[in-house]
Amino acid sequence: MSVSSANNSSDWIDVSLTIHTGMAHWPDNPGIKIEPSLCLAHGDVCNVSKLTLGSHTGTHVDGLNHFIKGGLGIDKMPLDATIGKARVIGIEDTESIKVAEIAPHNLQAGDRVLFKTVNSERCYQQDDFVEDFVYISTEAAEYLAERQVRTVGVDYLSVGGYQGNVVEVHHALLGSGIWVIEGLNLSAIAPGEYELICLPIKIQDGDAGLARAILKPL
Amino acid sequence: MSVSSANNSSDWIDVSLTIHTGMAHWPDNPGIKIEPSLCLAHGDVCNVSKLTLGSHTGTHVDGLNHFIKGGLGIDKMPLDATIGKARVIGIEDTESIKVAEIAPHNLQAGDRVLFKTVNSERCYQQDDFVEDFVYISTEAAEYLAERQVRTVGVDYLSVGGYQGNVVEVHHALLGSGIWVIEGLNLSAIAPGEYELICLPIKIQDGDAGLARAILKPL
Repeated sequence: MSVSSANNSSDWIDVSLTIHTGMAHWPDNPGIKIEPSLCLAHGDVCNVSKLTLGSHTGTHVDGLNHFIKGGLGIDKMPLDATIGKARVIGIEDTESIKVAEIAPHNLQAGDRVLFKTVNSERCYQQDDFVEDFVYISTEAAEYLAERQVRTVGVDYLSVGGYQGNVVEVHHALLGSGIWVIEGLNLSAIAPGEYELICLPIKIQDGDAGLARAILKPL
Repeated sequence: MSVSSANNSSDWIDVSLTIHTGMAHWPDNPGIKIEPSLCLAHGDVCNVSKLTLGSHTGTHVDGLNHFIKGGLGIDKMPLDATIGKARVIGIEDTESIKVAEIAPHNLQAGDRVLFKTVNSERCYQQDDFVEDFVYISTEAAEYLAERQVRTVGVDYLSVGGYQGNVVEVHHALLGSGIWVIEGLNLSAIAPGEYELICLPIKIQDGDAGLARAILKPL
């Protein structure tokens, strides 16, 4: 379907997190604060907010330079990494995303794949960081790199596990030039084929860009 | 053309500003600072940045609540306000966008219209705020509201003029439920018909959302 015919908002499903003060963030990342800078209620002519937050807040896309010295910043991401056909794969495992559950999907080079786990239903109900979210196992990350997928999306704040394999998984993916979307909320999305549009803000040499992500069923 | 077939990045033209420390901003808005929070070069396992900036930084979409008490926040913007067919109109006037130059284009209810002025070539070469940018005249803003256009985009940081009609123009547009995109760089864009995708980050009840905006010729 052409985007020009997308005159019905309901065609697109928003899978982005809502950014707000005090929302969950990776523990050693900056906290999120949205505060009034100008304020109608206080007599200013308009409302303007001051944002203080980390580059990996909410729904975002990692730059390759997030873990890879000299890797491409988010401003250099080719737009087709996050615009186009994408496959949403449902994951039953409540610990991690493992090769055994991915392999039957026969992923191909260039695929954009988003993993829907129990995280989507479970982790976004609260502003406290959830430590035991479902992450990508190191073997699965290496498998995705081997398959040369283009883009990987997950439904919590990191592709790697907390106090676990964060470094290994990011190195396997970003080091292979795979673009990573984190912080998707896929609770309204059934596994299947979709059109994906995910656009990160263009921060100069940014290690990530906060993003809006939307899906439309094919 | 389907977004799913958009496998060539060059199909889409990026019309977003690059966000960087010290970039131009509206004078009474917060300055822009991107600083390292975690840093590979200093021995951390990854790069993470802390962002301090205003909600109206760079390319962004205004919430209706920017100037209208109780107006919709940016998180409530219907996605089709900024996704779909858009018309880029070239403006020759180097002072302001006036009714005389818009009227021949016969704008219709629901149209998305982006104005390309000399701003695109002139104002983004420097980090100092340009005071005498081309803005929308109050009469033209009222005309656009009367025509019931859906969305208006401009190629500098405000639809209204500096120390001029900022309040009047925002009231005319936002008060009529017209969505406003500011800070587009249209220097690479010829007037004509395009597919527009502009996605602002989803800030809860936000008075604006920083955005990425792209165009594809029709």
